[in-house]
Amino acid sequence: MPRVEDLETPIVTVDLDIMAANIRKMQAYCDAHGLRFRPHIKTHKTPEIGRLQLEAGAQGITCQKLGEAEVFADAGFDDIFIPYNLIGPAKLARLTALARRCRVSVAVDSAPVAQGISEAAAAAGLEVPLLIECDTGAGRTGVQTPAQALVLAQEIDRIPGVRFAGLMTFPTNLETTPPFLAEAVALLGAAGLEAETVSGGGTPQTWRVHEIPQITEHRAGTYVFNDSNTLAAGTATLDECAMRVLMTVVSRPTAERAILDGGSKTLSADRLLWRDATYGTVVEYPEAVIYGYSEEHANVDVSACVRKPVVGERVTVIPNHCCTVANLHNELLGVRGGEVELTWRVRARGLVR
Amino acid sequence: MPRVEDLETPIVTVDLDIMAANIRKMQAYCDAHGLRFRPHIKTHKTPEIGRLQLEAGAQGITCQKLGEAEVFADAGFDDIFIPYNLIGPAKLARLTALARRCRVSVAVDSAPVAQGISEAAAAAGLEVPLLIECDTGAGRTGVQTPAQALVLAQEIDRIPGVRFAGLMTFPTNLETTPPFLAEAVALLGAAGLEAETVSGGGTPQTWRVHEIPQITEHRAGTYVFNDSNTLAAGTATLDECAMRVLMTVVSRPTAERAILDGGSKTLSADRLLWRDATYGTVVEYPEAVIYGYSEEHANVDVSACVRKPVVGERVTVIPNHCCTVANLHNELLGVRGGEVELTWRVRARGLVR
Repeated sequence: MPRVEDLETPIVTVDLDIMAANIRKMQAYCDAHGLRFRPHIKTHKTPEIGRLQLEAGAQGITCQKLGEAEVFADAGFDDIFIPYNLIGPAKLARLTALARRCRVSVAVDSAPVAQGISEAAAAAGLEVPLLIECDTGAGRTGVQTPAQALVLAQEIDRIPGVRFAGLMTFPTNLETTPPFLAEAVALLGAAGLEAETVSGGGTPQTWRVHEIPQITEHRAGTYVFNDSNTLAAGTATLDECAMRVLMTVVSRPTAERAILDGGSKTLSADRLLWRDATYGTVVEYPEAVIYGYSEEHANVDVSACVRKPVVGERVTVIPNHCCTVANLHNELLGVRGGEVELTWRVRARGLVR
Repeated sequence: MPRVEDLETPIVTVDLDIMAANIRKMQAYCDAHGLRFRPHIKTHKTPEIGRLQLEAGAQGITCQKLGEAEVFADAGFDDIFIPYNLIGPAKLARLTALARRCRVSVAVDSAPVAQGISEAAAAAGLEVPLLIECDTGAGRTGVQTPAQALVLAQEIDRIPGVRFAGLMTFPTNLETTPPFLAEAVALLGAAGLEAETVSGGGTPQTWRVHEIPQITEHRAGTYVFNDSNTLAAGTATLDECAMRVLMTVVSRPTAERAILDGGSKTLSADRLLWRDATYGTVVEYPEAVIYGYSEEHANVDVSACVRKPVVGERVTVIPNHCCTVANLHNELLGVRGGEVELTWRVRARGLVR
């Protein structure tokens, strides 16, 4: 088996022991608090990793796109939640085809989207469970108020081919999420509608989601690998970072600057959520700052490093955002004790629809 | 043939007439000014498009990675420049294998990198032309001074397996590039070393590079598609933007906000170079601002739009950076007059090494 130090760079490795520990820890947390766990596979897009998550006790998976769900259904996954507004005849045909071969639930945030699914599912003789997406602070998709959630739930309850199955939000936060969910669940209950599932998501606040009593299910993706974002959020330690991008110093043009052999096409251009404009953590040089990138170069300020890396030296980078990194690469290498044990193909990448 | 309006979104289309005009215009500019043109294929990673560039008169291609060069050599391209420091036994073995089957030149910015190529090439009985990368203002890779360029050129001239072939820089600019190149060429000439090729690159300042007398060759990539960056730079007009990402409004959670069905995994997270934190141009809604994204959502501020898009409506987005968008997708669709004429596989994507 090849050793990590012999691999050509840049290359994305996953420490198998760290990943296994991450999977165990999250499942144990959810189990301890009576939360169902539904990992988000957008992070790895790799059925073999999803299988490990199910074997650890996850109840099903979350896919962000139909393309991901189709790949995972092909691989035998049979309980899939798609927290995304699916619109248009092509997507609805794919949704009903998927619903014929596995349990699939979908989130919606408006009546037109629910009605589209209703018509397609009813015509196919199916009943698709729908969760209502609630914007509990993120400012992205989702109904804006508990009253809007109630109106949409009543509409879903009224039309054929769909079933009101609960609420979802992303990301769960501890400030504005609890009052929204409490009011929505109360309004629904008063109207005779049960939110059978209340699904929250996101890795950064993971370890406190049990403090929100309405939440019945947790979704998380990043936790499986961790990254510089979860490091910065304090959700994970360096020892819990399984995704490590091996890179080589290809230039030392000045005393302060080192250039690594990968940029936005290797590490993605995602900024750190909690600190501006840095692009990854260099494990061997904690004082180094990746301050810029282009497509195939990362610019590193090494002025604060006592010892400075030389041309040809290899370093290990914890990327800002592991989900967008996996999406850029054809393969992930599983390593254990410095040896390459396996290669996974990132099967659901490149499928943006 | 399917019509554009029937395509499932999100999807990346390339207007074939616009692209053909872009290819003709750039070649005509270079021809008019006696510049050799060497298009950068990192933008499309698609041999069929590279072939169109050669047929228009380009003298060869530029590849940023060995993986790209190998795909293009497999497709019959025989004059390839790799402006990248290639380091380590695996890469050097691939370089010599490539140099056996086509003309390949490489840029270096330090003696250790030149020496590595020298040893590998000499052992293989080859002579690899090396250009010296000069940092003429970008602050990335490259020797920092004309004097350093001379020292490195003399080292290349001294060692076997390599040949000093000239200078390269990226991006060419009109302020600091000309004096650097003038001094370097003069120093080299005085030492009896001819910079046979002086290669500049980059799309934004394309139409003025003939003003720099030392430049003999121009490299550009983005010009083939154009994007919001070249629009903002004034290098291209909307009519010259060939890459158009078709997207659908999947949510209108508030009066001001619309959400499109793709984010950093569709449009990339690259920021606009000349304006902060916007993520693409919405053709049908010039007043709309894509102000944020997540992996599969783009957040659009539509408050300035008189008419506002509704859920299910389709829009056309000119992405910030076409090079990173092509890299995210398995396929590009060639369209003409609203009809899909062909599908290209982005063959050199996912090959980060």
